[in-house]
Amino acid sequence: MRISDLSRQSGIPVATIRFYLREKLLPPGTMTARNQAEYDERHLRRIRFVRALTNMAALDLTSVRELVSMVDDHAIPLPEVFRNLNRLLYPHGSPAPRSESIAEAQNEIDGFIHRMDWRNREESAGPEALAQVVATLRSLGCDDDLGFLENFAEAASRLAVAEMELLPASTDDVDRGAMIARAVMFKVAFQVLHRMAHEHHASLRFPEPATPAPPTSPAQTARPPRMR
Amino acid sequence: MRISDLSRQSGIPVATIRFYLREKLLPPGTMTARNQAEYDERHLRRIRFVRALTNMAALDLTSVRELVSMVDDHAIPLPEVFRNLNRLLYPHGSPAPRSESIAEAQNEIDGFIHRMDWRNREESAGPEALAQVVATLRSLGCDDDLGFLENFAEAASRLAVAEMELLPASTDDVDRGAMIARAVMFKVAFQVLHRMAHEHHASLRFPEPATPAPPTSPAQTARPPRMR
Repeated sequence: MRISDLSRQSGIPVATIRFYLREKLLPPGTMTARNQAEYDERHLRRIRFVRALTNMAALDLTSVRELVSMVDDHAIPLPEVFRNLNRLLYPHGSPAPRSESIAEAQNEIDGFIHRMDWRNREESAGPEALAQVVATLRSLGCDDDLGFLENFAEAASRLAVAEMELLPASTDDVDRGAMIARAVMFKVAFQVLHRMAHEHHASLRFPEPATPAPPTSPAQTARPPRMR
Repeated sequence: MRISDLSRQSGIPVATIRFYLREKLLPPGTMTARNQAEYDERHLRRIRFVRALTNMAALDLTSVRELVSMVDDHAIPLPEVFRNLNRLLYPHGSPAPRSESIAEAQNEIDGFIHRMDWRNREESAGPEALAQVVATLRSLGCDDDLGFLENFAEAASRLAVAEMELLPASTDDVDRGAMIARAVMFKVAFQVLHRMAHEHHASLRFPEPATPAPPTSPAQTARPPRMR
Protein backbone atom coordinates (compact mmCIF):
# COMPACT_ATOMS: atom_id res chain seq x y z
CA MET A 1 0.00 0.00 0.00
CA ARG A 2 1.07 3.61 -0.45
CA ILE A 3 1.69 6.08 2.33
CA SER A 4 -1.78 7.57 1.76
CA ASP A 5 -3.36 4.13 2.32
CA LEU A 6 -1.24 3.69 5.43
CA SER A 7 -2.55 7.02 6.69
CA ARG A 8 -6.19 6.16 5.93
CA GLN A 9 -6.00 2.72 7.53
CA SER A 10 -4.16 3.89 10.66
CA GLY A 11 -6.00 7.20 11.03
CA ILE A 12 -2.60 8.93 11.37
CA PRO A 13 -1.79 11.94 9.13
CA VAL A 14 0.78 11.43 6.37
CA ALA A 15 2.97 14.15 7.91
CA THR A 16 3.16 12.15 11.18
CA ILE A 17 4.03 8.97 9.28
CA ARG A 18 6.83 10.83 7.48
CA PHE A 19 8.04 12.05 10.86
CA TYR A 20 8.10 8.45 12.17
CA LEU A 21 10.11 7.43 9.08
CA ARG A 22 12.62 10.25 9.59
CA GLU A 23 12.93 9.40 13.29
CA LYS A 24 13.53 5.71 12.40
CA LEU A 25 10.51 4.67 14.44
CA LEU A 26 9.17 3.09 11.27
CA PRO A 27 11.33 1.09 8.81
CA PRO A 28 11.44 2.46 5.26
CA GLY A 29 9.04 1.04 2.65
CA THR A 30 10.18 -0.77 -0.49
CA MET A 31 10.97 1.74 -3.23
CA THR A 32 8.90 0.91 -6.32
CA ALA A 33 9.77 4.07 -8.24
CA ARG A 34 11.55 7.32 -7.59
CA ASN A 35 9.59 8.99 -4.76
CA GLN A 36 7.24 6.03 -4.48
CA ALA A 37 7.43 3.53 -1.64
CA GLU A 38 5.26 0.54 -0.90
CA TYR A 39 4.25 -0.33 2.70
CA ASP A 40 2.63 -3.40 4.22
CA GLU A 41 0.81 -4.73 7.27
CA ARG A 42 3.95 -4.62 9.38
CA HIS A 43 4.16 -0.88 8.87
CA LEU A 44 0.54 -0.50 9.88
CA ARG A 45 1.10 -2.45 13.08
CA ARG A 46 4.28 -0.53 13.86
CA ILE A 47 2.43 2.78 13.50
CA ARG A 48 -0.20 1.57 15.95
CA PHE A 49 2.54 0.40 18.31
CA VAL A 50 4.36 3.76 18.25
CA ARG A 51 1.05 5.58 18.65
CA ALA A 52 0.08 3.51 21.67
CA LEU A 53 3.43 4.13 23.34
CA THR A 54 3.47 7.89 22.78
CA ASN A 55 -0.23 8.68 23.25
CA MET A 56 -1.50 6.24 25.81
CA ALA A 57 1.63 5.44 27.79
CA ALA A 58 3.02 9.00 27.33
CA LEU A 59 6.53 7.70 26.60
CA ASP A 60 9.06 10.03 25.02
CA LEU A 61 10.54 9.34 21.58
CA THR A 62 13.87 8.13 22.96
CA SER A 63 12.08 5.46 25.00
CA VAL A 64 9.85 4.54 22.07
CA ARG A 65 12.89 4.14 19.81
CA GLU A 66 14.50 1.84 22.37
CA LEU A 67 11.35 -0.27 22.65
CA VAL A 68 11.03 -0.47 18.86
CA SER A 69 14.62 -1.68 18.57
CA MET A 70 13.90 -4.41 21.16
CA VAL A 71 11.01 -5.67 19.03
CA ASP A 72 13.26 -5.95 15.98
CA ASP A 73 16.51 -7.21 17.51
CA HIS A 74 16.01 -10.87 18.36
CA ALA A 75 19.57 -11.12 19.63
CA ILE A 76 18.56 -9.35 22.87
CA PRO A 77 17.63 -12.05 25.42
CA LEU A 78 14.10 -11.76 26.81
CA PRO A 79 15.15 -11.13 30.44
CA GLU A 80 17.13 -8.16 29.19
CA VAL A 81 14.11 -6.93 27.21
CA PHE A 82 12.10 -7.07 30.44
CA ARG A 83 14.74 -5.20 32.39
CA ASN A 84 14.94 -2.44 29.77
CA LEU A 85 11.17 -2.30 29.57
CA ASN A 86 10.87 -1.90 33.32
CA ARG A 87 13.53 0.77 33.39
CA LEU A 88 11.55 2.77 30.81
CA LEU A 89 8.10 2.14 32.27
CA TYR A 90 8.89 2.55 35.95
CA PRO A 91 11.75 4.99 36.35
CA HIS A 92 13.02 5.42 39.89
CA GLY A 93 13.36 8.93 41.27
CA SER A 94 16.82 10.19 42.08
CA PRO A 95 18.23 8.49 45.17
CA ALA A 96 18.19 10.56 48.35
CA PRO A 97 21.38 11.25 50.26
CA ARG A 98 21.97 8.55 52.87
CA SER A 99 20.58 9.44 56.28
CA GLU A 100 19.94 7.66 59.53
CA SER A 101 16.20 7.38 58.84
CA ILE A 102 16.86 5.91 55.39
CA ALA A 103 19.42 3.44 56.75
CA GLU A 104 16.89 2.28 59.33
CA ALA A 105 14.17 1.90 56.71
CA GLN A 106 16.66 0.04 54.48
CA ASN A 107 17.13 -2.64 57.12
CA GLU A 108 13.39 -3.17 57.36
CA ILE A 109 13.05 -3.27 53.57
CA ASP A 110 15.87 -5.80 53.24
CA GLY A 111 14.03 -8.01 55.73
CA PHE A 112 10.79 -7.57 53.84
CA ILE A 113 12.37 -8.51 50.47
CA HIS A 114 14.01 -11.51 52.06
CA ARG A 115 10.59 -12.66 53.33
CA MET A 116 9.05 -12.11 49.87
CA ASP A 117 11.87 -14.27 48.44
CA TRP A 118 12.09 -12.04 45.39
CA ARG A 119 15.24 -12.57 43.38
CA ASN A 120 16.05 -9.16 42.05
CA ARG A 121 19.43 -8.47 40.64
CA GLU A 122 22.08 -7.06 42.87
CA GLU A 123 22.04 -3.76 41.00
CA SER A 124 18.25 -3.27 41.26
CA ALA A 125 17.45 0.20 42.56
CA GLY A 126 14.12 -1.05 43.92
CA PRO A 127 15.10 -1.67 47.56
CA GLU A 128 16.70 1.77 47.86
CA ALA A 129 13.63 3.41 46.35
CA LEU A 130 11.38 1.57 48.82
CA ALA A 131 13.52 2.60 51.79
CA GLN A 132 13.26 6.18 50.59
CA VAL A 133 9.45 5.91 50.37
CA VAL A 134 9.23 4.54 53.91
CA ALA A 135 11.58 7.16 55.36
CA THR A 136 9.66 9.90 53.54
CA LEU A 137 6.29 8.66 54.79
CA ARG A 138 7.58 8.70 58.36
CA SER A 139 9.02 12.19 57.99
CA LEU A 140 5.57 13.34 56.81
CA GLY A 141 3.72 12.02 59.84
CA CYS A 142 2.52 8.70 58.38
CA ASP A 143 3.69 6.24 61.01
CA ASP A 144 2.02 3.28 59.37
CA ASP A 145 3.60 -0.07 59.89
CA LEU A 146 4.98 -1.81 56.83
CA GLY A 147 2.00 -4.17 56.45
CA PHE A 148 0.84 -2.18 53.46
CA LEU A 149 4.00 -3.22 51.61
CA GLU A 150 3.22 -6.93 51.82
CA ASN A 151 -0.29 -6.22 50.63
CA PHE A 152 1.05 -4.20 47.69
CA ALA A 153 3.75 -6.73 46.89
CA GLU A 154 1.21 -9.54 46.67
CA ALA A 155 -0.97 -7.48 44.34
CA ALA A 156 2.08 -6.64 42.21
CA SER A 157 3.09 -10.31 42.09
CA ARG A 158 -0.36 -11.31 40.93
CA LEU A 159 -0.22 -8.79 38.08
CA ALA A 160 3.23 -9.94 36.99
CA VAL A 161 2.27 -13.63 37.09
CA ALA A 162 -0.91 -12.96 35.08
CA GLU A 163 1.18 -11.20 32.45
CA MET A 164 3.81 -13.97 32.23
CA GLU A 165 1.13 -16.64 31.88
CA LEU A 166 -0.05 -15.06 28.63
CA LEU A 167 3.32 -15.77 27.02
CA PRO A 168 3.92 -19.00 25.04
CA ALA A 169 5.95 -21.78 26.63
CA SER A 170 8.90 -21.52 24.26
CA THR A 171 11.05 -18.40 24.10
CA ASP A 172 11.26 -18.74 20.32
CA ASP A 173 7.48 -18.46 19.96
CA VAL A 174 7.29 -15.15 21.83
CA ASP A 175 5.96 -12.30 19.69
CA ARG A 176 8.15 -9.54 21.09
CA GLY A 177 5.95 -6.74 19.78
CA ALA A 178 2.86 -8.19 21.45
CA MET A 179 4.82 -8.89 24.66
CA ILE A 180 6.04 -5.31 24.93
CA ALA A 181 2.69 -3.85 23.89
CA ARG A 182 1.01 -5.92 26.58
CA ALA A 183 3.42 -4.86 29.32
CA VAL A 184 2.91 -1.20 28.40
CA MET A 185 -0.87 -1.39 28.00
CA PHE A 186 -1.26 -3.43 31.19
CA LYS A 187 0.54 -0.68 33.05
CA VAL A 188 -1.87 1.88 31.59
CA ALA A 189 -4.86 -0.35 32.38
CA PHE A 190 -3.76 -0.81 35.96
CA GLN A 191 -3.33 2.93 36.44
CA VAL A 192 -6.84 3.57 35.16
CA LEU A 193 -8.26 0.81 37.37
CA HIS A 194 -6.32 2.05 40.39
CA ARG A 195 -7.80 5.51 39.88
CA MET A 196 -11.32 4.12 39.49
CA ALA A 197 -10.95 1.88 42.56
CA HIS A 198 -9.57 4.81 44.54
CA GLU A 199 -12.52 7.01 43.56
CA HIS A 200 -15.01 4.25 44.28
CA HIS A 201 -13.64 3.44 47.74
CA ALA A 202 -13.15 7.10 48.65
CA SER A 203 -16.80 7.75 47.80
CA LEU A 204 -17.87 4.80 49.97
CA ARG A 205 -15.63 6.01 52.80
CA PHE A 206 -16.68 9.68 52.58
CA PRO A 207 -20.20 9.66 51.15
CA GLU A 208 -21.21 12.90 49.50
CA PRO A 209 -24.65 14.44 49.83
CA ALA A 210 -26.69 13.88 46.67
CA THR A 211 -26.08 16.76 44.29
CA PRO A 212 -28.37 17.89 41.51
CA ALA A 213 -27.34 16.42 38.16
CA PRO A 214 -24.80 18.61 36.37
CA PRO A 215 -25.98 20.27 33.16
CA THR A 216 -25.63 17.76 30.36
CA SER A 217 -23.47 18.66 27.43
CA PRO A 218 -24.02 17.12 23.98
CA ALA A 219 -20.83 15.09 24.46
CA GLN A 220 -22.22 13.57 27.65
CA THR A 221 -25.64 12.72 26.25
CA ALA A 222 -24.03 10.99 23.28
CA ARG A 223 -23.17 8.01 25.53
CA PRO A 224 -25.73 5.83 27.27
CA PRO A 225 -25.93 6.55 31.01
CA ARG A 226 -23.82 4.30 33.21
CA MET A 227 -24.85 2.83 36.57
CA ARG A 228 -24.04 5.06 39.50
CA MET B 1 14.34 28.83 63.53
CA ARG B 2 16.03 30.79 60.78
CA ILE B 3 16.15 29.88 57.12
CA SER B 4 19.68 28.49 57.60
CA ASP B 5 18.41 26.13 60.33
CA LEU B 6 15.54 25.11 58.06
CA SER B 7 18.09 24.31 55.38
CA ARG B 8 20.28 22.29 57.72
CA GLN B 9 17.42 20.31 59.23
CA SER B 10 15.77 19.56 55.88
CA GLY B 11 18.98 19.04 53.91
CA ILE B 12 17.61 21.42 51.25
CA PRO B 13 19.78 24.36 50.10
CA VAL B 14 18.69 27.87 51.19
CA ALA B 15 18.35 28.89 47.52
CA THR B 16 15.78 26.11 46.97
CA ILE B 17 13.86 27.15 50.09
CA ARG B 18 13.77 30.75 48.81
CA PHE B 19 12.50 29.41 45.50
CA TYR B 20 9.72 27.51 47.31
CA LEU B 21 8.81 30.72 49.17
CA ARG B 22 8.66 32.74 45.94
CA GLU B 23 6.58 30.04 44.27
CA LYS B 24 4.17 30.05 47.24
CA LEU B 25 4.84 26.36 47.86
CA LEU B 26 5.91 27.36 51.37
CA PRO B 27 4.07 29.95 53.49
CA PRO B 28 6.14 32.98 54.55
CA GLY B 29 7.84 32.93 57.96
CA THR B 30 7.08 35.42 60.73
CA MET B 31 9.09 38.61 60.26
CA THR B 32 11.14 39.29 63.40
CA ALA B 33 13.25 42.07 61.92
CA ARG B 34 13.84 43.65 58.56
CA ASN B 35 15.22 40.80 56.37
CA GLN B 36 14.84 38.30 59.20
CA ALA B 37 12.09 35.69 59.25
CA GLU B 38 11.38 32.95 61.76
CA TYR B 39 10.25 29.47 60.65
CA ASP B 40 8.86 26.50 62.55
CA GLU B 41 8.15 22.77 62.37
CA ARG B 42 5.29 23.28 59.91
CA HIS B 43 7.72 24.82 57.43
CA LEU B 44 10.04 21.88 57.85
CA ARG B 45 7.29 19.40 57.18
CA ARG B 46 6.04 21.39 54.20
CA ILE B 47 9.50 21.38 52.66
CA ARG B 48 9.67 17.60 53.04
CA PHE B 49 6.21 17.32 51.52
CA VAL B 50 7.10 19.45 48.46
CA ARG B 51 10.37 17.58 48.09
CA ALA B 52 8.63 14.20 48.16
CA LEU B 53 6.13 15.30 45.52
CA THR B 54 8.67 16.78 43.13
CA ASN B 55 11.54 14.32 43.58
CA MET B 56 9.97 10.99 44.29
CA ALA B 57 6.59 11.32 42.58
CA ALA B 58 8.04 13.51 39.79
CA LEU B 59 5.08 15.91 39.91
CA ASP B 60 5.39 19.32 38.24
CA LEU B 61 5.18 22.53 40.26
CA THR B 62 1.62 23.33 39.15
CA SER B 63 0.44 19.97 40.50
CA VAL B 64 2.44 20.41 43.70
CA ARG B 65 0.91 23.85 44.26
CA GLU B 66 -2.57 22.40 43.83
CA LEU B 67 -1.82 19.60 46.31
CA VAL B 68 -0.38 22.07 48.81
CA SER B 69 -3.51 24.22 48.57
CA MET B 70 -5.66 21.15 49.28
CA VAL B 71 -3.71 20.49 52.48
CA ASP B 72 -4.36 24.03 53.68
CA ASP B 73 -7.93 24.65 52.53
CA HIS B 74 -10.21 22.68 54.84
CA ALA B 75 -13.28 23.95 53.00
CA ILE B 76 -12.62 21.48 50.18
CA PRO B 77 -14.60 18.30 50.94
CA LEU B 78 -12.50 15.14 51.17
CA PRO B 79 -14.13 13.38 48.19
CA GLU B 80 -13.15 16.36 46.08
CA VAL B 81 -9.60 16.21 47.43
CA PHE B 82 -9.45 12.57 46.34
CA ARG B 83 -10.78 13.35 42.89
CA ASN B 84 -8.24 16.15 42.38
CA LEU B 85 -5.49 13.94 43.74
CA ASN B 86 -6.39 11.15 41.33
CA ARG B 87 -6.55 13.52 38.41
CA LEU B 88 -3.00 14.70 39.19
CA LEU B 89 -1.56 11.27 40.02
CA TYR B 90 -3.17 9.22 37.27
CA PRO B 91 -3.71 11.42 34.23
CA HIS B 92 -5.59 9.79 31.37
CA GLY B 93 -4.09 9.97 27.88
CA SER B 94 -5.94 11.94 25.24
CA PRO B 95 -9.10 10.12 24.15
CA ALA B 96 -8.89 8.38 20.77
CA PRO B 97 -11.32 9.20 17.99
CA ARG B 98 -14.37 6.90 18.17
CA SER B 99 -14.05 3.82 16.01
CA GLU B 100 -15.91 0.58 15.60
CA SER B 101 -13.28 -1.35 17.56
CA ILE B 102 -13.42 1.14 20.45
CA ALA B 103 -17.24 1.08 20.49
CA GLU B 104 -17.15 -2.71 20.70
CA ALA B 105 -14.58 -2.63 23.53
CA GLN B 106 -16.68 0.03 25.29
CA ASN B 107 -19.64 -2.34 25.49
CA GLU B 108 -17.48 -5.02 27.07
CA ILE B 109 -15.97 -2.52 29.51
CA ASP B 110 -19.40 -1.21 30.53
CA GLY B 111 -20.41 -4.79 31.31
CA PHE B 112 -17.23 -5.34 33.27
CA ILE B 113 -17.72 -2.18 35.37
CA HIS B 114 -21.32 -3.13 36.01
CA ARG B 115 -20.14 -6.52 37.33
CA MET B 116 -17.51 -4.83 39.52
CA ASP B 117 -20.30 -2.62 40.93
CA TRP B 118 -17.94 0.33 41.03
CA ARG B 119 -19.73 3.63 41.49
CA ASN B 120 -17.65 6.06 39.52
CA ARG B 121 -19.05 9.41 38.62
CA GLU B 122 -20.79 9.80 35.32
CA GLU B 123 -18.02 12.08 34.05
CA SER B 124 -15.19 9.64 34.91
CA ALA B 125 -12.88 9.19 31.92
CA GLY B 126 -11.86 5.75 33.24
CA PRO B 127 -14.21 3.57 31.18
CA GLU B 128 -13.27 5.32 27.94
CA ALA B 129 -9.57 4.93 28.75
CA LEU B 130 -10.07 1.21 29.43
CA ALA B 131 -11.93 0.71 26.16
CA GLN B 132 -9.05 2.42 24.38
CA VAL B 133 -6.55 0.10 26.08
CA VAL B 134 -8.51 -2.98 25.05
CA ALA B 135 -8.98 -1.81 21.44
CA THR B 136 -5.28 -0.93 21.25
CA LEU B 137 -4.20 -4.31 22.61
CA ARG B 138 -6.31 -6.06 19.99
CA SER B 139 -4.97 -3.91 17.18
CA LEU B 140 -1.45 -4.91 18.28
CA GLY B 141 -2.10 -8.64 18.11
CA CYS B 142 -2.85 -9.27 21.80
CA ASP B 143 -6.16 -11.11 21.57
CA ASP B 144 -6.30 -11.81 25.28
CA ASP B 145 -9.70 -12.14 26.83
CA LEU B 146 -10.66 -9.55 29.41
CA GLY B 147 -9.99 -11.81 32.40
CA PHE B 148 -6.85 -9.84 33.16
CA LEU B 149 -9.00 -6.78 33.87
CA GLU B 150 -10.91 -8.49 36.70
CA ASN B 151 -7.61 -9.64 38.16
CA PHE B 152 -6.20 -6.09 37.96
CA ALA B 153 -9.39 -4.51 39.30
CA GLU B 154 -9.34 -6.76 42.36
CA ALA B 155 -5.71 -5.87 43.05
CA ALA B 156 -6.51 -2.15 42.62
CA SER B 157 -9.48 -2.46 44.97
CA ARG B 158 -7.32 -4.09 47.59
CA LEU B 159 -4.82 -1.24 47.43
CA ALA B 160 -7.53 1.41 47.68
CA VAL B 161 -9.23 -0.30 50.63
CA ALA B 162 -5.92 -0.67 52.48
CA GLU B 163 -5.29 3.05 52.02
CA MET B 164 -8.78 4.10 53.20
CA GLU B 165 -8.49 1.90 56.29
CA LEU B 166 -5.52 3.93 57.49
CA LEU B 167 -7.72 7.04 57.77
CA PRO B 168 -9.47 7.92 61.06
CA ALA B 169 -13.20 7.29 61.36
CA SER B 170 -14.21 10.92 61.53
CA THR B 171 -13.64 13.29 58.62
CA ASP B 172 -12.64 16.06 61.02
CA ASP B 173 -9.77 13.99 62.38
CA VAL B 174 -8.19 13.46 58.99
CA ASP B 175 -4.70 14.96 58.66
CA ARG B 176 -4.96 16.10 55.05
CA GLY B 177 -1.22 16.45 54.60
CA ALA B 178 -0.61 12.88 55.76
CA MET B 179 -3.53 11.61 53.69
CA ILE B 180 -2.20 13.19 50.49
CA ALA B 181 1.39 12.21 51.24
CA ARG B 182 0.27 8.63 51.74
CA ALA B 183 -1.70 8.49 48.48
CA VAL B 184 1.29 9.85 46.58
CA MET B 185 3.91 7.69 48.29
CA PHE B 186 1.74 4.56 48.03
CA LYS B 187 1.57 5.13 44.30
CA VAL B 188 5.38 5.38 44.17
CA ALA B 189 5.76 2.29 46.38
CA PHE B 190 3.42 0.28 44.19
CA GLN B 191 5.31 1.25 41.06
CA VAL B 192 8.58 0.13 42.59
CA LEU B 193 7.04 -3.14 43.79
CA HIS B 194 5.41 -3.73 40.41
CA ARG B 195 8.78 -3.33 38.76
CA MET B 196 10.47 -5.67 41.23
CA ALA B 197 7.70 -8.27 40.89
CA HIS B 198 7.90 -8.01 37.13
CA GLU B 199 11.66 -8.55 37.17
CA HIS B 200 11.38 -11.43 39.62
CA HIS B 201 8.69 -13.29 37.67
CA ALA B 202 10.35 -12.61 34.31
CA SER B 203 13.57 -14.12 35.64
CA LEU B 204 11.66 -17.21 36.86
CA ARG B 205 9.88 -17.47 33.51
CA PHE B 206 13.00 -16.96 31.40
CA PRO B 207 15.95 -18.16 33.49
CA GLU B 208 19.27 -16.71 32.49
CA PRO B 209 22.49 -18.67 32.36
CA ALA B 210 24.70 -17.79 35.32
CA THR B 211 26.93 -14.89 34.39
CA PRO B 212 30.24 -13.99 36.00
CA ALA B 213 29.80 -11.32 38.66
CA PRO B 214 30.05 -7.81 37.17
CA PRO B 215 33.09 -5.76 38.15
CA THR B 216 32.30 -4.15 41.49
CA SER B 217 32.50 -0.40 41.76
CA PRO B 218 33.14 1.38 45.08
CA ALA B 219 29.46 2.52 45.11
CA GLN B 220 28.31 -1.10 44.91
CA THR B 221 30.58 -2.48 47.54
CA ALA B 222 29.44 0.23 49.97
CA ARG B 223 26.22 -1.71 50.60
CA PRO B 224 26.02 -5.17 52.17
CA PRO B 225 25.25 -7.87 49.58
CA ARG B 226 21.59 -8.85 49.28
CA MET B 227 20.20 -12.36 48.72
CA ARG B 228 19.90 -13.31 45.08
